Amino acid sequence: MIPLKKTANFLVSCLATIPLCFSFIFLQSLQAQTKEELLSPKKNQVTTYGMGYSQQRYSDLKQIDRKNIKNLSPTWAYSMENLSGEQSQPLVYDGVLYVTNAKWTMAVDVETGRQLWRTQEDFDPAALRVVCCGVSNKGAAIYDGKVFRMTIDAHIKALDLKTGKVLWKKKFAEWQDGFSGIAAPLIANGVLISGTSGAEFGVRGFLDGWDPQTGQHLWRKYTTPAPGEAGSETWPQGSDAYKRGGATPWITGSYDPETDLTYWGTGNGGAWNPIDRPGDNLYIASVIAVRPKTGEIAWHYQFTPGDPFDFDAVNENILADIKVNGKLRKVLIHADKNAFLYVLDRVTGELLAANEFAKQNWAKGIDLKTGRPVPTDLLDRIKAGEEVEFWPGPRGGKNWVPMAFNPKTGLVYLNAANQPRIFKFSKLDEYKVGQRYQGVQTSVPPQNPNEPNGFYMALDPLTAKPKWKIPLMDYMQWGGMLVTDGGILFSGKQTGEFVAFDAENGKKLWEFQTGSGINAPAITYEHKGRQYVTVLSGRGGGAPNTPTELREKIPLSGMMWTFSLPKK
Amino acid sequence: MIPLKKTANFLVSCLATIPLCFSFIFLQSLQAQTKEELLSPKKNQVTTYGMGYSQQRYSDLKQIDRKNIKNLSPTWAYSMENLSGEQSQPLVYDGVLYVTNAKWTMAVDVETGRQLWRTQEDFDPAALRVVCCGVSNKGAAIYDGKVFRMTIDAHIKALDLKTGKVLWKKKFAEWQDGFSGIAAPLIANGVLISGTSGAEFGVRGFLDGWDPQTGQHLWRKYTTPAPGEAGSETWPQGSDAYKRGGATPWITGSYDPETDLTYWGTGNGGAWNPIDRPGDNLYIASVIAVRPKTGEIAWHYQFTPGDPFDFDAVNENILADIKVNGKLRKVLIHADKNAFLYVLDRVTGELLAANEFAKQNWAKGIDLKTGRPVPTDLLDRIKAGEEVEFWPGPRGGKNWVPMAFNPKTGLVYLNAANQPRIFKFSKLDEYKVGQRYQGVQTSVPPQNPNEPNGFYMALDPLTAKPKWKIPLMDYMQWGGMLVTDGGILFSGKQTGEFVAFDAENGKKLWEFQTGSGINAPAITYEHKGRQYVTVLSGRGGGAPNTPTELREKIPLSGMMWTFSLPKK
Repeated sequence: MIPLKKTANFLVSCLATIPLCFSFIFLQSLQAQTKEELLSPKKNQVTTYGMGYSQQRYSDLKQIDRKNIKNLSPTWAYSMENLSGEQSQPLVYDGVLYVTNAKWTMAVDVETGRQLWRTQEDFDPAALRVVCCGVSNKGAAIYDGKVFRMTIDAHIKALDLKTGKVLWKKKFAEWQDGFSGIAAPLIANGVLISGTSGAEFGVRGFLDGWDPQTGQHLWRKYTTPAPGEAGSETWPQGSDAYKRGGATPWITGSYDPETDLTYWGTGNGGAWNPIDRPGDNLYIASVIAVRPKTGEIAWHYQFTPGDPFDFDAVNENILADIKVNGKLRKVLIHADKNAFLYVLDRVTGELLAANEFAKQNWAKGIDLKTGRPVPTDLLDRIKAGEEVEFWPGPRGGKNWVPMAFNPKTGLVYLNAANQPRIFKFSKLDEYKVGQRYQGVQTSVPPQNPNEPNGFYMALDPLTAKPKWKIPLMDYMQWGGMLVTDGGILFSGKQTGEFVAFDAENGKKLWEFQTGSGINAPAITYEHKGRQYVTVLSGRGGGAPNTPTELREKIPLSGMMWTFSLPKK
Repeated sequence: MIPLKKTANFLVSCLATIPLCFSFIFLQSLQAQTKEELLSPKKNQVTTYGMGYSQQRYSDLKQIDRKNIKNLSPTWAYSMENLSGEQSQPLVYDGVLYVTNAKWTMAVDVETGRQLWRTQEDFDPAALRVVCCGVSNKGAAIYDGKVFRMTIDAHIKALDLKTGKVLWKKKFAEWQDGFSGIAAPLIANGVLISGTSGAEFGVRGFLDGWDPQTGQHLWRKYTTPAPGEAGSETWPQGSDAYKRGGATPWITGSYDPETDLTYWGTGNGGAWNPIDRPGDNLYIASVIAVRPKTGEIAWHYQFTPGDPFDFDAVNENILADIKVNGKLRKVLIHADKNAFLYVLDRVTGELLAANEFAKQNWAKGIDLKTGRPVPTDLLDRIKAGEEVEFWPGPRGGKNWVPMAFNPKTGLVYLNAANQPRIFKFSKLDEYKVGQRYQGVQTSVPPQNPNEPNGFYMALDPLTAKPKWKIPLMDYMQWGGMLVTDGGILFSGKQTGEFVAFDAENGKKLWEFQTGSGINAPAITYEHKGRQYVTVLSGRGGGAPNTPTELREKIPLSGMMWTFSLPKK
């Protein structure tokens, strides 16, 4: 598994300590999987959240294509013994799928769908109280023979890749204080990095660095600065508002090994009502570029200064090299809940483009010179106590379910929401540790039946101009996007269909009814010459976001589905 | 939907009351479905438990055959939002599947798998205490625009076929006394007939007749006779042992419209330990031929007199017309838990054949003249207080999951268990209403690894000679059998595979991994020219019967799967 040249170098350099050297070689050959496999996963591997450190959710596999997609059918299904919702993205290594939900970590054989092991989570059910938006887990990381995951009750743990045995487990916070762990951790430059959830409970966000071998805590970087630290000037001086300031990074960061920076979106401010936190409030609703070895923030960009709308900014940051004004730039692409699609230079943080991709009424635009939104009067009106209808509501724009980027077409494929929300700031009760801390009266206005609930679209990231745009007249969707060189765009629907679209024009080519809502991103990979597509089905894990009508129509479930073309 | 001739007669006879007559005609045209459709379901209908009143679980459909079965694939899956186990056989009417589990009654569109309605059961969870062997439901009946089902908490109810609205609900017993309802009810000659479960709790079994329109109780027939009634001489005189005598009919009866008799198997005696009930104890472990209009028992046959082994006899009674000694006879075929395969004349109850189909050590054989088993010394030894190993254990022989009969080949297809049990009668505690009442120490001896756990087999019902016999080396199976004119035998496995066998030789032709154990019978039917196969997947509902190893390996689930060949 170690590239030949590196192995040769290593062999030379360890001749002096022959026994140690040999045991190291032996262990390396046994212990999946290596840094190299994280950097350049093979066709038969999905080694990271996002299908690669760049999180493009793009595959150059093309066995399944526009012509034969009609023959795609389930290869097997695996029950995840859960009815609380499935949002996880599986990983694939050595013919085995590694997948999580709130209750279980599971290893499943790619070819047969048979369970190899599963390990139950043993959290106190009371911990479910501190989960803002449905009980779920979004995935695992794998490295060096281990599977890493976070838990509802604010732990991070390492399991043996072969057996599921828990190798170490560390508490990163007290769940009673409002913290929980739902994201897939990230391995970058040998460090295991994890965030936290809990901004609706007024926690102070952070990232943690861990030694993946031992679970030793290496560093913590809070995402709201303490007095005297860079950015602390954006918080009210003499106040401890930053201590309950939110900015929780609850979606996995991407990683660029060349810049050696990880890129994390941060959550909303605490409380939603900003009355006690005048100012921009770094680093809420931002992207932060973080050094994996130290936690140092190399640069940041704040999408929604002071975020009073629960715009959040945890959405994935896709890394790509694209031409900007004729020049190839190393960029980061981010579609924010606030309805703007951003392109930044990922080396410097410079804002290169920011364009509206969904209906909004909070900003006249984003000023490329200052990097700041030019607000409408909406914020002043709501601050003055007025009840306002704002677009997009807190579902976005685009919510957490990831978009895809095809480096060959240069397009991002995303599913956007198109729903307003009514907000009126209410009295902000005194902060109490572990209690909801929001200070807003909110309601969803009745949807205009002629107004789509959302759109599937293919966009030029620099202009947000759609190549195509399909209105979603029935419901907004919560399925992630996956695009392939077969010309296929895969995504799942709240009504249970796993759907293949023509990536060229958004036309539906194929669908299969999985029996419950799909609220998770799909992956594709090859195994023994056969292309597979795997996705989880199980409504929930975002229960507040499910219309009552769908809760009645669409049963709960928890299944992992794998599809392929028939064997010849 | 009413045959032309009958309709004509009706029109003539109701001329006197024209408004009533017209409203009746109008209602009949709306209200699925009729007696005729129960008697002779069309290819696109499965209107009764057992796929026809004869319960042959045979279909003359042959679109899916030995050659193209390799292309069979899931059409859709539907989540039954349940992790307690799925044992139900769906019904099909007018393009809609009607299916039950302990929690829900559901209507699902055949073509798309989309839910049309579902209605939740609202029983007290405490009622689960009186379920001996896992929480489940085995199916529904449909008639005259209604779906009928039983409930865990000892009710029977009628739901509107189109909406799922509960039309009426009747309590047939107090669940606190040990009664529960799990079987599919039976409509025969216009009467709704239901049994009960609870023999492990020392209840007294019975059948009830109901008016399907109103839920009015028409009759009750106890399956243990009171003093003075026929059969009471088989119980200890002067004792009220018959009142806690078991004999619960908990699998749906079959029905012969020509004899106008329904045929019900009855359960084990209460308690298992027969110390307080010397005698044959009619009608425990018997088949009873019951008039649907009155509940009268026309004849009976007792498979295991005095049943001290929990041999039960609820297994389905397949009705067929076969040649016996060159003469076509109207027979009933029954494979008992006690390891003998019986053929009886279903008009008279005469025993025609009884041959061993599974390993057993309790009887030297069945005497065709007396109709009685010739016991080995096993019973005397256990009665004398000895600990004995007996074959087959209480799993059978054959357990409740139904076999199939192909009238063209004249063979029954069944899955047999091959497992002993160790029994020692213990002190029989005083009977307490609603408490377990068994009086036996029982354990499962370690299985000899060279001894199969069971067999799939195709048998001549008159001789029990196998045409073929496939040993099950890993686990015994709990999937029902379905045989078709395509030459296919369908059955599911505890390990999750839904399997198609060549009915000629038992060779596996195809399988699909459904993600959880299959513990239910499949059905097949046609819809708009396409043949479908539907089966439920969801381990459990027989939890005590699941080896620990399987409980670890095979996740719980609750899905309805529908398969078909790809569209051309």
